[in-house]
Amino acid sequence: MAFDFETLVPAGSPAPAVRWTGAPRFNFTGGNNDPAGVPVEGLKRAADAVLTREGRTLATYGLESGPQGYRPLREFLVGKLKRDAGMTCTADDILIVSGSLQALDLVNGALAARGDTIICERDCYEGTLNRYTRMGLNVVGIPTDGDGMLMDALETALADLKARGVRPKFVYTIPTVQNPTATILSMERRETLLALADQYGVPIFEDDCYADLIWSGERPPALHAMSKSANVIHIGSFSKSIAPALRVGFIVAPWQIMARMLALKTDAGSGALEQMVLAEYCVAHFATHVPQIRKNLQAKLDTLVESLGEQFGTAAEFDYPPGGIFLWVKLPDQVDTMKLYNAALAEGVAINPGPNWSADKAWSKSRMRLCFASPSHEDIRAGIKVLADVCSREFGVPVRSANKAR
Amino acid sequence: MAFDFETLVPAGSPAPAVRWTGAPRFNFTGGNNDPAGVPVEGLKRAADAVLTREGRTLATYGLESGPQGYRPLREFLVGKLKRDAGMTCTADDILIVSGSLQALDLVNGALAARGDTIICERDCYEGTLNRYTRMGLNVVGIPTDGDGMLMDALETALADLKARGVRPKFVYTIPTVQNPTATILSMERRETLLALADQYGVPIFEDDCYADLIWSGERPPALHAMSKSANVIHIGSFSKSIAPALRVGFIVAPWQIMARMLALKTDAGSGALEQMVLAEYCVAHFATHVPQIRKNLQAKLDTLVESLGEQFGTAAEFDYPPGGIFLWVKLPDQVDTMKLYNAALAEGVAINPGPNWSADKAWSKSRMRLCFASPSHEDIRAGIKVLADVCSREFGVPVRSANKAR
Repeated sequence: MAFDFETLVPAGSPAPAVRWTGAPRFNFTGGNNDPAGVPVEGLKRAADAVLTREGRTLATYGLESGPQGYRPLREFLVGKLKRDAGMTCTADDILIVSGSLQALDLVNGALAARGDTIICERDCYEGTLNRYTRMGLNVVGIPTDGDGMLMDALETALADLKARGVRPKFVYTIPTVQNPTATILSMERRETLLALADQYGVPIFEDDCYADLIWSGERPPALHAMSKSANVIHIGSFSKSIAPALRVGFIVAPWQIMARMLALKTDAGSGALEQMVLAEYCVAHFATHVPQIRKNLQAKLDTLVESLGEQFGTAAEFDYPPGGIFLWVKLPDQVDTMKLYNAALAEGVAINPGPNWSADKAWSKSRMRLCFASPSHEDIRAGIKVLADVCSREFGVPVRSANKAR
Repeated sequence: MAFDFETLVPAGSPAPAVRWTGAPRFNFTGGNNDPAGVPVEGLKRAADAVLTREGRTLATYGLESGPQGYRPLREFLVGKLKRDAGMTCTADDILIVSGSLQALDLVNGALAARGDTIICERDCYEGTLNRYTRMGLNVVGIPTDGDGMLMDALETALADLKARGVRPKFVYTIPTVQNPTATILSMERRETLLALADQYGVPIFEDDCYADLIWSGERPPALHAMSKSANVIHIGSFSKSIAPALRVGFIVAPWQIMARMLALKTDAGSGALEQMVLAEYCVAHFATHVPQIRKNLQAKLDTLVESLGEQFGTAAEFDYPPGGIFLWVKLPDQVDTMKLYNAALAEGVAINPGPNWSADKAWSKSRMRLCFASPSHEDIRAGIKVLADVCSREFGVPVRSANKAR
């Protein structure tokens, strides 16, 4: 008889995973990219060049760069962050990590413990919210509008917490192409946010994963660049600009808290081959590669917007995003997107239901996130049609599609 | 003024890291490999082939293989584990992880919580012991001899724990080239261990990271292969056979506990490029590559043994290891290897002091682990000479070196 492991699993463990049975036919979830956007030839040449030059260094944990990651990749980032985000830092201020999810774990682990409070945008990345839930943190969600987090609401929350004797561990924000709302925090609000952070003694945790993907190619400076008190921990990733299956992200932080995160990074370094190939590729090609993928992504967004107009009409409300890979859609109030998620998945269409992407479950009940980078233009059109069929059947909306009554 | 993060760090956090200042001149620590042993040309060809064929799949988290890792790598492992370790499993029983350190985290996290008890060999891998300490686990160390863990001592420990109402969460063991003792658990003891595990309802956590590196090329079957009750979680790595900076390891486990580990693996997959390149390389070359590196490793061991004989004479006691990358050395009782570590490091020689590699600090006080894979033959000789000089100066032993009184 097979041994029963279940009797040994600690109380409070997360639910067991279910078996993976393949990707859904129409996948509007996940930060996947456009397959055509992977610079395969460039990566091949980079792999060949860097392995020829430095392949033998793979015999050593951390190569010859130590625990903060492959130094040429950190040096590339120093220049890139200066050029694009206005940030001033050195390679010693950067820690290469296994995707920005490890960055979340390290920042969270260095600063927060069960019972602590953090602040974030009301609608927020699922991977972040799930981590807070699992860690037993209290999450205060701040509403947003088209210019990002509302500063009066943040100020009220900070004052309220202070009155109750609570010092939040940080304000987690995705200021530049927020996930899922795709908003960009205005310059004025950036200044206000930094002033409030100083006033209340609360650091800022800036997640900058999507900032490379602004259609115009112009972005505001990072909060890290604007801070006068070095109170910002900044993280980023190559998942959106190069390829998500390469698990390479980074943290920029002052040494005081970097030393705490390094103490928690007990993995003997992140994957070195991926770091080496990325550095070799990016030094030569990053600046020309990214504008190309932006163009392709915006074309897919346009197909999605057109399909939603055709299939959902006025039943789907959204702001046209200035960049990114997702659209945050409001459906009529009677739609429960958790139920829509299940019904649509049964028909082969995967969406992100709003409540999984928000600190406010009631507010987000009729909202959903649609990712548009990975499916083809054809699949976007076909998938949105199926989604509209399911939504109409389950919730009575949309009532018209493609100029015809349903 | 710079923001003070320190006031926000939770109580009980590990000590901050110190800045890395480069590798020591003579490095006898760490699981680093022989740089000459990295199959650079083969990895280059593998990268080119797999990127040409499947490079575009990097646009999707998990490639087309889902959360358990690149399927061709899992399929290679199915054959390799059958051939080498006698194990019967399918690709669905395997989870690819970011090095065996992540495997430790996932197995520990799925089964153990603060206050729980685990059993391991008395002398044990530092990365394992540190994790138990950090998790607040009670560690029961079982003595070993030349045939591995002593079964009468294990039985006594299990009976004693049972009498106190304690059910250990698992027996963690490195049965095949144990770290640091390099012992191989005999077949008879393997059978006894499995019988005791069944009798006491305690699963086995088998860490098989060094089993590829036995000089004779012949290894006993894995405990996983011998178990009749599917009570063994088996982990392994490519760090020792291919290259440690590639962070690729694996877990073989029944679905019941695999589902629990998958729920804890919230990293959106391990690095895909490393998995793809490894699979492509290993299918064609693993079986011929490993015997070559074994030969080079044994030659380095022989240089280390010769150097110790010359410099330490009878002051250094050890058993000649049947494989691996490290030697577990007993020095005279007056030597405190924690102090030797500091004194030697000041002279550019890094060793692993015994107490960091043992659950019994008194027993291991005069012991040290010396890794021989990474330094050159020349550096092994020169480094051991410096170590003997330091040891003689600090502790009065060895009294003779190279046939001369000191």
